[in-house]
Amino acid sequence: MSGDDIPSAALLIIGNEILSGRTQDLNLNAVAKKLGAVGIPLKEVRVVPDLESEIVGALNALRARYSYVFTTGGIGPTHDDITIDAVASAFGVAVSEHEGARALLLKHYGADNLTTARLRMARAPLGGTLVDNPVSAAPGIKIENVYVLAGVPSIMQAMLDSIISTLRHGPALHSLTVSAFVAESVIAEELSAIAARFPHIDIGSYPWVHNGKFGTALVARGTDASAIKQAAEALLALVLALDPHATMTCDP
Amino acid sequence: MSGDDIPSAALLIIGNEILSGRTQDLNLNAVAKKLGAVGIPLKEVRVVPDLESEIVGALNALRARYSYVFTTGGIGPTHDDITIDAVASAFGVAVSEHEGARALLLKHYGADNLTTARLRMARAPLGGTLVDNPVSAAPGIKIENVYVLAGVPSIMQAMLDSIISTLRHGPALHSLTVSAFVAESVIAEELSAIAARFPHIDIGSYPWVHNGKFGTALVARGTDASAIKQAAEALLALVLALDPHATMTCDP
Repeated sequence: MSGDDIPSAALLIIGNEILSGRTQDLNLNAVAKKLGAVGIPLKEVRVVPDLESEIVGALNALRARYSYVFTTGGIGPTHDDITIDAVASAFGVAVSEHEGARALLLKHYGADNLTTARLRMARAPLGGTLVDNPVSAAPGIKIENVYVLAGVPSIMQAMLDSIISTLRHGPALHSLTVSAFVAESVIAEELSAIAARFPHIDIGSYPWVHNGKFGTALVARGTDASAIKQAAEALLALVLALDPHATMTCDP
Repeated sequence: MSGDDIPSAALLIIGNEILSGRTQDLNLNAVAKKLGAVGIPLKEVRVVPDLESEIVGALNALRARYSYVFTTGGIGPTHDDITIDAVASAFGVAVSEHEGARALLLKHYGADNLTTARLRMARAPLGGTLVDNPVSAAPGIKIENVYVLAGVPSIMQAMLDSIISTLRHGPALHSLTVSAFVAESVIAEELSAIAARFPHIDIGSYPWVHNGKFGTALVARGTDASAIKQAAEALLALVLALDPHATMTCDP
């Protein structure tokens, strides 16, 4: 676990459906935004298949290195949901039925409908505590610095919302974006000079293509709102000379 | 590098803009589909920031393990484009100006406009060869089993299209999807039994929520088209009993 002042996070996306291209992942972006808003920068993401050894290896690498690790996917009732077992294996603990989780499922489904399959969703690594699922009852799990969340984006986001106030927050990250129909190669040198003037601000240059025309988004990111504003104004001045319709926007 | 009969691939997405949530990644899905179509399964994805040590560590882990590694992002002309240097560092080789790349940029920009910044895009790790960029001239780089591609999705895809016929193809992956308004917990046991009957087929169960109603997509994936069809028919029969509007679709 990181001992730094500023907390850090990693995301482990578990699922063959992402790697096969069947499903477009939406969780990375949602997690990045929600954590960034409370000053917990997302530092690394891995996507691994539904294979226990792969999940264990990636989880152990990530949880040793970052303040928090969030996993998404593989916690449902079916045969391909192996995340709980893999997380337990990563921590070297057994899996057992969690009484609190069983109670939640019992309340949600009723005794007559609490089938063996549904009870699978009450299994947790020993030492795990519950993460609230306001959407569909089956809880996520917290164990040490690891949060095991659902894969369905709406449920994952509701789970993350339910725990985010319990995480250690860092200084909020701000960013301003300057966009212009200017190829980045035209301004690369001046851009380097601006980046050098603001060493504590992350200044990124992201080319884009719209209808065959090249443009660039220049992004100033960091925790010092006043320096970000100064940097973004310098970026805007740089591109306004080349594209009078250049814009500066405040990122949400 | 993998010595298996079936080639494998990993993707290394380089970019603060993905980790900050500013940009929704689209490259994972596109790479997964293009490689899957020629029988090269994508086995792992990592997303790392624009930091040389992070890129080097991830690239060396991935290139040792998979037949092919594709990187996206960080090969433009600006100060934050450090992928070429990081790849060279991972391979322990120097970076120098690639004559062929310089010639391409000269042709594209003309001698008067081939600025120092643009010439940065002619830099390559020693031993690297060029990957064609049909969109904007600045080439990608191939070095051993690593392909260094652009981050802009349209350019990345054009680069991948230009090299895909040169890769070692495996048996094509097929998949059929059965969708129904049936909660996966209702069918979990029968689903396990079907999965056990088709051990060489990957059978996945993916819950979804539409307007508050729960449904499930059951996906049969693999290289044996006839077994996939049999498995999907068994899946369809299972859910038709519960939702007469269940559908079976052939994935692209």
